[in-house]
Amino acid sequence: MLKTSGSINKTIWVEDQRVYIIEQTLLPAQNQIIEVRTVDEMVDAIKRLAVRGAPAIGIAAAFGMFIAAKQSVKISIDVMLADLNKAHDKLLASRPTAVNLAWALNRIQLVINTELQTGTTPSQLQENLLLESNRILNEDDNCCKAIGRHGAELLKCGDTVLTHCNAGGLATASYGTALAPIYYAVEEQLKSISVYADETRPLLQGARLTAWELSNRNISVTVICDNMAATVLSSRKINVIIVGADRIAGNGDVANKIGTLGLAIIANHYNIPFYVAAPLSTFDFSLSSGNQIPIEERNPDEIRFSNKTQSVPDQAKIYNPAFDVTPHSLIQAYITENGVYTSVEKVAKSRKIR
Amino acid sequence: MLKTSGSINKTIWVEDQRVYIIEQTLLPAQNQIIEVRTVDEMVDAIKRLAVRGAPAIGIAAAFGMFIAAKQSVKISIDVMLADLNKAHDKLLASRPTAVNLAWALNRIQLVINTELQTGTTPSQLQENLLLESNRILNEDDNCCKAIGRHGAELLKCGDTVLTHCNAGGLATASYGTALAPIYYAVEEQLKSISVYADETRPLLQGARLTAWELSNRNISVTVICDNMAATVLSSRKINVIIVGADRIAGNGDVANKIGTLGLAIIANHYNIPFYVAAPLSTFDFSLSSGNQIPIEERNPDEIRFSNKTQSVPDQAKIYNPAFDVTPHSLIQAYITENGVYTSVEKVAKSRKIR
Repeated sequence: MLKTSGSINKTIWVEDQRVYIIEQTLLPAQNQIIEVRTVDEMVDAIKRLAVRGAPAIGIAAAFGMFIAAKQSVKISIDVMLADLNKAHDKLLASRPTAVNLAWALNRIQLVINTELQTGTTPSQLQENLLLESNRILNEDDNCCKAIGRHGAELLKCGDTVLTHCNAGGLATASYGTALAPIYYAVEEQLKSISVYADETRPLLQGARLTAWELSNRNISVTVICDNMAATVLSSRKINVIIVGADRIAGNGDVANKIGTLGLAIIANHYNIPFYVAAPLSTFDFSLSSGNQIPIEERNPDEIRFSNKTQSVPDQAKIYNPAFDVTPHSLIQAYITENGVYTSVEKVAKSRKIR
Repeated sequence: MLKTSGSINKTIWVEDQRVYIIEQTLLPAQNQIIEVRTVDEMVDAIKRLAVRGAPAIGIAAAFGMFIAAKQSVKISIDVMLADLNKAHDKLLASRPTAVNLAWALNRIQLVINTELQTGTTPSQLQENLLLESNRILNEDDNCCKAIGRHGAELLKCGDTVLTHCNAGGLATASYGTALAPIYYAVEEQLKSISVYADETRPLLQGARLTAWELSNRNISVTVICDNMAATVLSSRKINVIIVGADRIAGNGDVANKIGTLGLAIIANHYNIPFYVAAPLSTFDFSLSSGNQIPIEERNPDEIRFSNKTQSVPDQAKIYNPAFDVTPHSLIQAYITENGVYTSVEKVAKSRKIR
């Protein structure tokens, strides 16, 4: 099922028990909404990046579990549980790097476990999975707003922010992580802020998505190729860099979209503050360092072809990692829903205090 | 006039008084040769990068002056001189950054001046411009081979070299600058060398041209997006970085394809040697620093569209500098036809000694 015009303010949502997403692969040329009807369609949407961004794929996975319950023939709770287990494994394997996927699936699993203890019916379980998925979505929204509020304190009127990839509304339920401080500073505090966006090869999420959503919210944005960031930083056009994260290890190392590491090294060279904005659900304290984060390698054809025109000759090899790991030493601070922290130890402590 | 199959080993050449180039914008999908018949066609070929690379556009400009003489009605030397002056100005303005353009046009001007002193005819002048253009081309070939011979001493068997953009055969008469040490090491010294090539946005000269010519010469090449270089360098896959140059200032600062600066900063961060390979004609000792090198800004549509599909929404701005300036402090050594020099002062001295 296809709706023709997309929503500007929502990435993924439910209406009348139906799950909808913006088809992000078509932006900015087309703004289409699609209904995701099966678990396999959700896995596919995640794999081909129709829905992407660590927080958004967490939400998508939760809704994927609700869809699994909806699809299941409701003859017994055991049959539904078997279907949910299959769906869980497929969704968990859809992309390896973002920890939010596992985090959201764990949340759903806790609901399933609780329901089982209280003796539930298939319909009741389905209803509760929808409730929990919507709860995850709403929490994300509040969390992003809090990230925005805390991060906005780092921005002063007239600042220009550089960002990489899309860690905006389209990477979350609606408000973004790396872009949230910009939205909050502009819309709530009426500060004048401009943005430079790396286009972010190979799939151009910066050019296609970040530029689209910033323009929609009337924020001045200039797109550059990733390899132009050094020249822009050297000319002192940029005051602050803010990026998102797909997983943050226990020592503060950050896995994020490929290109983040190089940008952090260059920022460090020019003494420009480099911030990572992410909800606490992105921190994976079970890993002692970034080396342990699995890095997804994607199809070489994403680089070999540019919109069906072949750029790289057949005989040449291609290496296409989707993420890189930035060591904590290059990161000025972490912007979370609890506040801005200069070290991961302080982030961990903030979790316990709340 | 269009020939159907391209030469692998030549970028620009003359046959029967006709000037041919490989149409580089179509590589690697199509390998076409075009005849350049007028000065305006040559200016256009340079502007739209059908012929590109600092040494190659120097050679192209020289042949452009020969074409101007050929086009000129040969009623008097004064008429021809007026035509040559117009052609000179058009060719000089075709691209601002590479100094080889001005250098080659100066070489041609010296021939014109000498001819005028000896009382020449239009036909004789035309003939001498062809001779001088071919001399520049042959000198480039010898020069690139010498760069290769000297640069190969920096490479040991089993090394992997990272390069940016295309400073190969297609950027010169035939042998390249940054790729010359690789060709020499592999073909003359039988060393085993692998290459990583940055794809080099926005026009993908690394993906399209470097990967093509290395593959044609059976050298293993892996293409990466520019933003993947940091992750490749961090994993110690690369022993040496070699890039070309469009202009080198008197203090050793290097203007080269956009992305070179960022790569040099990252190489420095990981202590990987960063070399610049260029003929002496690329050094502009009239400029005291890289700040004085004019940087070409190109059409935003090179970034806004990827093969006719719009990537950047209309409302977003685009910044598209074609080059950046790498400070001399980040450069390990300069590989020239005279030898490998750790400072630009030593390069300058080598000119005087020869």
